[in-house]
Amino acid sequence: MHSVMKALVKERAEPGFTLAQVPVPEIGPTDVLIRVEKAGVCGTDWHIYSWDTWAQARVKTPLTIGHEFMGTVTAIGDAVRAVSVGDRVSAEGHIADLTCLLCRTGQAHICERVQIIGVDCNGAFAEYIAMPEYNVWKLDPAIPDEFAAIFDPLGNAVHTVMSAGVSIKSVVITGVGSIGLMAIPVARAAGASSVYAIDVNPSKLELAKRLGADDTFLATQPGLVDEIKRRTSGDGVDVLLEMSGSGAAIDTGLQMVRNGGTAALLGIPSDNVSINLAERIIFKGLTVLGINGRRMFETWYQTQALVKSGRVDLRPIITHVLPYERFDEAFELMRTGEAAKIVLDFKGDLA
Amino acid sequence: MHSVMKALVKERAEPGFTLAQVPVPEIGPTDVLIRVEKAGVCGTDWHIYSWDTWAQARVKTPLTIGHEFMGTVTAIGDAVRAVSVGDRVSAEGHIADLTCLLCRTGQAHICERVQIIGVDCNGAFAEYIAMPEYNVWKLDPAIPDEFAAIFDPLGNAVHTVMSAGVSIKSVVITGVGSIGLMAIPVARAAGASSVYAIDVNPSKLELAKRLGADDTFLATQPGLVDEIKRRTSGDGVDVLLEMSGSGAAIDTGLQMVRNGGTAALLGIPSDNVSINLAERIIFKGLTVLGINGRRMFETWYQTQALVKSGRVDLRPIITHVLPYERFDEAFELMRTGEAAKIVLDFKGDLA
Amino acid sequence: MHSVMKALVKERAEPGFTLAQVPVPEIGPTDVLIRVEKAGVCGTDWHIYSWDTWAQARVKTPLTIGHEFMGTVTAIGDAVRAVSVGDRVSAEGHIADLTCLLCRTGQAHICERVQIIGVDCNGAFAEYIAMPEYNVWKLDPAIPDEFAAIFDPLGNAVHTVMSAGVSIKSVVITGVGSIGLMAIPVARAAGASSVYAIDVNPSKLELAKRLGADDTFLATQPGLVDEIKRRTSGDGVDVLLEMSGSGAAIDTGLQMVRNGGTAALLGIPSDNVSINLAERIIFKGLTVLGINGRRMFETWYQTQALVKSGRVDLRPIITHVLPYERFDEAFELMRTGEAAKIVLDFKGDLA
Amino acid sequence: MHSVMKALVKERAEPGFTLAQVPVPEIGPTDVLIRVEKAGVCGTDWHIYSWDTWAQARVKTPLTIGHEFMGTVTAIGDAVRAVSVGDRVSAEGHIADLTCLLCRTGQAHICERVQIIGVDCNGAFAEYIAMPEYNVWKLDPAIPDEFAAIFDPLGNAVHTVMSAGVSIKSVVITGVGSIGLMAIPVARAAGASSVYAIDVNPSKLELAKRLGADDTFLATQPGLVDEIKRRTSGDGVDVLLEMSGSGAAIDTGLQMVRNGGTAALLGIPSDNVSINLAERIIFKGLTVLGINGRRMFETWYQTQALVKSGRVDLRPIITHVLPYERFDEAFELMRTGEAAKIVLDFKGDLA
Repeated sequence: MHSVMKALVKERAEPGFTLAQVPVPEIGPTDVLIRVEKAGVCGTDWHIYSWDTWAQARVKTPLTIGHEFMGTVTAIGDAVRAVSVGDRVSAEGHIADLTCLLCRTGQAHICERVQIIGVDCNGAFAEYIAMPEYNVWKLDPAIPDEFAAIFDPLGNAVHTVMSAGVSIKSVVITGVGSIGLMAIPVARAAGASSVYAIDVNPSKLELAKRLGADDTFLATQPGLVDEIKRRTSGDGVDVLLEMSGSGAAIDTGLQMVRNGGTAALLGIPSDNVSINLAERIIFKGLTVLGINGRRMFETWYQTQALVKSGRVDLRPIITHVLPYERFDEAFELMRTGEAAKIVLDFKGDLA
Repeated sequence: MHSVMKALVKERAEPGFTLAQVPVPEIGPTDVLIRVEKAGVCGTDWHIYSWDTWAQARVKTPLTIGHEFMGTVTAIGDAVRAVSVGDRVSAEGHIADLTCLLCRTGQAHICERVQIIGVDCNGAFAEYIAMPEYNVWKLDPAIPDEFAAIFDPLGNAVHTVMSAGVSIKSVVITGVGSIGLMAIPVARAAGASSVYAIDVNPSKLELAKRLGADDTFLATQPGLVDEIKRRTSGDGVDVLLEMSGSGAAIDTGLQMVRNGGTAALLGIPSDNVSINLAERIIFKGLTVLGINGRRMFETWYQTQALVKSGRVDLRPIITHVLPYERFDEAFELMRTGEAAKIVLDFKGDLA
Repeated sequence: MHSVMKALVKERAEPGFTLAQVPVPEIGPTDVLIRVEKAGVCGTDWHIYSWDTWAQARVKTPLTIGHEFMGTVTAIGDAVRAVSVGDRVSAEGHIADLTCLLCRTGQAHICERVQIIGVDCNGAFAEYIAMPEYNVWKLDPAIPDEFAAIFDPLGNAVHTVMSAGVSIKSVVITGVGSIGLMAIPVARAAGASSVYAIDVNPSKLELAKRLGADDTFLATQPGLVDEIKRRTSGDGVDVLLEMSGSGAAIDTGLQMVRNGGTAALLGIPSDNVSINLAERIIFKGLTVLGINGRRMFETWYQTQALVKSGRVDLRPIITHVLPYERFDEAFELMRTGEAAKIVLDFKGDLA
Repeated sequence: MHSVMKALVKERAEPGFTLAQVPVPEIGPTDVLIRVEKAGVCGTDWHIYSWDTWAQARVKTPLTIGHEFMGTVTAIGDAVRAVSVGDRVSAEGHIADLTCLLCRTGQAHICERVQIIGVDCNGAFAEYIAMPEYNVWKLDPAIPDEFAAIFDPLGNAVHTVMSAGVSIKSVVITGVGSIGLMAIPVARAAGASSVYAIDVNPSKLELAKRLGADDTFLATQPGLVDEIKRRTSGDGVDVLLEMSGSGAAIDTGLQMVRNGGTAALLGIPSDNVSINLAERIIFKGLTVLGINGRRMFETWYQTQALVKSGRVDLRPIITHVLPYERFDEAFELMRTGEAAKIVLDFKGDLA
């Protein structure tokens, strides 16, 4: 094995990444080393690339970026039992402490001491990454590499949909960025009886329609709450999947939910949100769910079932696959909104 | 039967009530007429009495006030089947339409077209009240009149506790007005492993202690979030029961809940509340429940079981029982905070 | 209105029905009178027609048969509020007492004092039927008559599927009579990731395949438990929907469910079943659900959503529509197994 | 550290145990070595001691027996992170594979490849035991040794009670052996509104009364189903906790549950049970839960909360504490039914 490798690194507290030579990570007795082959680019990566206030507060340089990926295991620690060299894998990027109340009760995805790869510790935009055996997900051979590389964000969509529960229910999705888009076929496959998508971006809405939304609406359309109620016998939808993080969308979305319905919040508002709790939540008897990460590993099993059966087809969402050296181009495509999901290829020199 | 009766009436758009002579209500084929014997005084009655902005916006005069009561059935409509003259009863004060999606699926308590007695239509501070048979709750003989008269607010406490789920869980209650106080013995009887109460009023906290709170805290105590975490192995409580409606209490309360925990909101904020959704709800994976009314009639069965078995003793909460003619005195006791729960007696002239 | 009508009546304690002239039913203040237009023929009707031991023990003659139907309201009682003359309706055939614990807590479908139309009181194989307003389901204009006529058994399938919960789960259905067949598209629409059907009848399995089963198996196939496990990563299915009532199918079906899975039992065994509780249920940590009727009216809303959206298409299941006078032919088709679902037409002389 | 230790060993395929000298177990990188101090004697140990047909089929000799225990960690493997030498601990005796669907989705307690200590591999009736770090439960200092030694069976009771859900519900327990007895204070602390206990042994019923049962009944009492219904308004109990494994008790217990109620089955029938599924489960809409082991580690947290808060007091149940050398005496006390729970002391020679 080589001792150095190429990686996309946030070297200094300023915009941009560097394609750097860094040491291949070392593994402990319960870790495995993975040769990264494909990796997804996420909005979080863009925050770090552009070095916005969130990134400045959270990220310590130098740091290898990236948390969505798949690859092949090349080495395992002495105490590893269930993963072997040669296994084709993806991995859960939230490294939980596995010892706290939450980890010991099946809720490791909200462990208070979680470390996120590519954010709190070195990540996946590199030739190699070390991961705890616990985090590794062995891939079914039927899952294509590109899809496997984005099981992490697809898992966000699946976890949101499954937490809300959509079986024979009507659903509104506010915000169809890449996770919101994925939530459309996921909700349909999970049994939603109708799925409406709302966004400010007409081209995203067009994609939403292709992905199976029953109808789509510009967030700016006047009378939108009434429009949604008209389509749901005047009651409002059973379920809101909030994926924009916009205060205005949250307020409008909550109005669209029927009394007794459920709102699952995945989008992260950058500021406090002012909410009329009495009218939007309390009198309506709503259930509001904060959604974070993906369940380990219910969500991964569900995600695999959806992709393997073909009920969720990610092809329309993966708009670009680029060699990792062209990362600046990838972030430019994200900035302009041209891309839905971009996958970077780290495998080129493997052959 | 007499054709006129005495009632406490909001006659004009100004503070105060009038002890007036009004017609005995008429009943339709599915209604029953009840001779009111005891009635509880609620914060809502105080809002209408003092004629605050909420009351001015909601209440149309003239209106007979009051929604918590018990009494005896004196007449029944032609189509009434399960209630008889002479039955000793309380009643659910939310008159739902019984025809909408919510009513037809066991959620009549959040019917969009609900009419609340004493708020939207004539109420229970009167010698007689007409109620739909559907709303009537036949009283177990083991339940004392005073307790039966306040099944409505006790039901709010029970519904909040049971919606959150407290069995072998740690609980914080923010705001121990009369419903918050009731929630303490209810939570203990429902299986809470620990109950902490927080309020701005030391005398209410003293009462909270007598009612079984494991510990009580002034809301103004510095470092209160940390104090609660110390008592819960550093994790925070499993459940928040928010019964104050205060924005500050909601924010503090949400911080006290552990990741993956549940917050049930019953208190009604008078204004929008500014919430850090990301830190308080989303990253923590919280479940936030809006709570309204009481379930028809799960909550009533549960309330009855708690009172009948003696596991919830309301005596410390009912601080005053007064003849209804002394209603001004009752509202003065509420205003000064001297009273926890006041029950009015409408039975005096029955003998 | 006429005072007499035609009806299919069990006149005496012997096989067969009589096409008789009987009084049009009278309605009470909370009832409605419905002109029956289409009615479904159920296995229960066959039990009564053939006068088997179950029927002999349960049915008191004379009795008008039939419980699956749709029609138009022609008269309403004085206290009826939400149903009007001219409404096109179906109705829940379980007449619950509406006053017991179960009815008062949203579980009227398992009321202990339920009366089933066409079994315990006069039914729907007639020109008119009287029903309590509470039981009436107003039909969406988008629902064709034939489908509306069988909302009752379709509701059994929906209630079974939704009680088990199938969203992103693997499902085995044992027994594909008409309800088992309906459960296939229902389970798929509700989000099942795979649906396997098992029966002794190859032609029913063929129909199962057309209705969307991923795979079908003869119950007699050797090694069937292993075969199902092979298709589910060796674990077994998440959910069993038992719709045969056969003791052997129940035993085999329970073996096919993975540890921690769910078995919903709808099929009614005619005798006691001998079960290895330790191996089949206890050590596996199974959840076993007894399923009866349909939820009032969650199931009806769900059924409507499925049919209206076209996600469940009943056309392949309704193999015959016959004028009601040809009822003997209908039962002969049932006896030979040629029919899946037969609908009788009572509307002929309406024009 | 010594290389040999004393242990109670099943040496040959015949009744009885031998107090033998055996090697101290070796530990792998993720294991810990525990000096056993106190250990509970279970019915399972009795099966192995008396060498009944179950034991003959399951147990391979030679084997160190025992699975309920507490002690102190004396050595840890290289990859152990969260347990230290000197920690006072108990441990989950079900060693799951941690790699299967069930283990990866929070259901390790029903892992198909589970190894139970003292049954499938060497157990805790010894001076030392090796356990995977994952299985270790660090004890709160407030928990007395004797109570800590029986967290395993207490956990069975807690898991059964919490799976059924008893908050403000009426409960019947059939079979009050040691776990059934423990279930009484657990159910009360978890919020049961009433707890009835049934057994064939009057002295166990007396103990049940002392532990908080509202009422107790001999299983042979005529009309017992009606008696229980009389105490529950004619409906039957909300919850059955079946802890006898007797077919007759299961049949009677199911009859005592109200329609829509829940039956949790923990007792293991030694043979098939013949059940009237139609009348006992299907028409009633029951939920029947197979219960196995304890949840890792929700149940352990709940068990700790109950014992630490004093809401569950195990003193009346632990009838004997004996030095381990007197194990024959312990099994004689079990055989005669004189003992409820016996704890063996392995600590004597530690001083």
